[in-house]
Amino acid sequence: MKITLLAIGKTNSKELNSLMEELEKRLPSYIKYKRKELSDVKNAKNLSETELKNAEADLILSFLNSSDAMILLDEKGEELTSVEFSRFLEQQMSHSVKHIVFCIGGALGFSEKIYNLRPQKIALSRMTFTHQMVRLFFTEQLYRAFSILQRKPYHNE
Amino acid sequence: MKITLLAIGKTNSKELNSLMEELEKRLPSYIKYKRKELSDVKNAKNLSETELKNAEADLILSFLNSSDAMILLDEKGEELTSVEFSRFLEQQMSHSVKHIVFCIGGALGFSEKIYNLRPQKIALSRMTFTHQMVRLFFTEQLYRAFSILQRKPYHNE
Repeated sequence: MKITLLAIGKTNSKELNSLMEELEKRLPSYIKYKRKELSDVKNAKNLSETELKNAEADLILSFLNSSDAMILLDEKGEELTSVEFSRFLEQQMSHSVKHIVFCIGGALGFSEKIYNLRPQKIALSRMTFTHQMVRLFFTEQLYRAFSILQRKPYHNE
Repeated sequence: MKITLLAIGKTNSKELNSLMEELEKRLPSYIKYKRKELSDVKNAKNLSETELKNAEADLILSFLNSSDAMILLDEKGEELTSVEFSRFLEQQMSHSVKHIVFCIGGALGFSEKIYNLRPQKIALSRMTFTHQMVRLFFTEQLYRAFSILQRKPYHNE
């Protein structure tokens, strides 16, 4: 199985980038993992909110293959503990899922175009964080999840 | 009202520090805010888990005044959305709370000594994050909460 984190727009903070890179260096011992940051939509300022979200949806969907499992990171999604998230990943592996793509929307969230596909949604928190910071939180949870599955001393219950 | 974030141990990542400082520079336009990082317990390696957590509890309690409202940031606490958290802060202000101290435990969490005081607990997430990273999450949520209360264009619902 491989896992991709798909996000809209480059990470605009060198600190967030560096914190993620630290975890990304360690993740390959657990899982094939890639962070994919799509370019921002061009001329976004001339678009309405709905138009912008639809354009972002098109970007996201054009990245995905039909066999990929798309999961939205969305505060309206299902909330899991770190241990539950690790079991969720384990289940995906046991169901022979080849590629999970976790998606983070743009600053305005996801378009109805995406929700209409009824994708699975996981919430990192009920709180809203910046769509930039969520990338770091996810990366840490992913690292934590595999540490739990492999019984490494990282997670204290 | 003033707000303090009380944490055990220095922030050991310059990136996390820098990301927090960015928000801390902007917070004073909303609220008197301070991050207070207590020194780690000495000789922690020679202590049992319970002893360490108790020593950390003593550090936390010695910082607090009897009139301070202590609130634990604890994944077993009540979960709020960002808007609910902003209303919570608003309520505290309207109840003339002078000083709220949000506490983050050490790597092992809080001691029973702290839980026995039955403090209010708020969860940033059901997931467990490093006790270092939680500092950044909290700072961002605090900034977001006041942006919401003051209707500033930071939070997209």
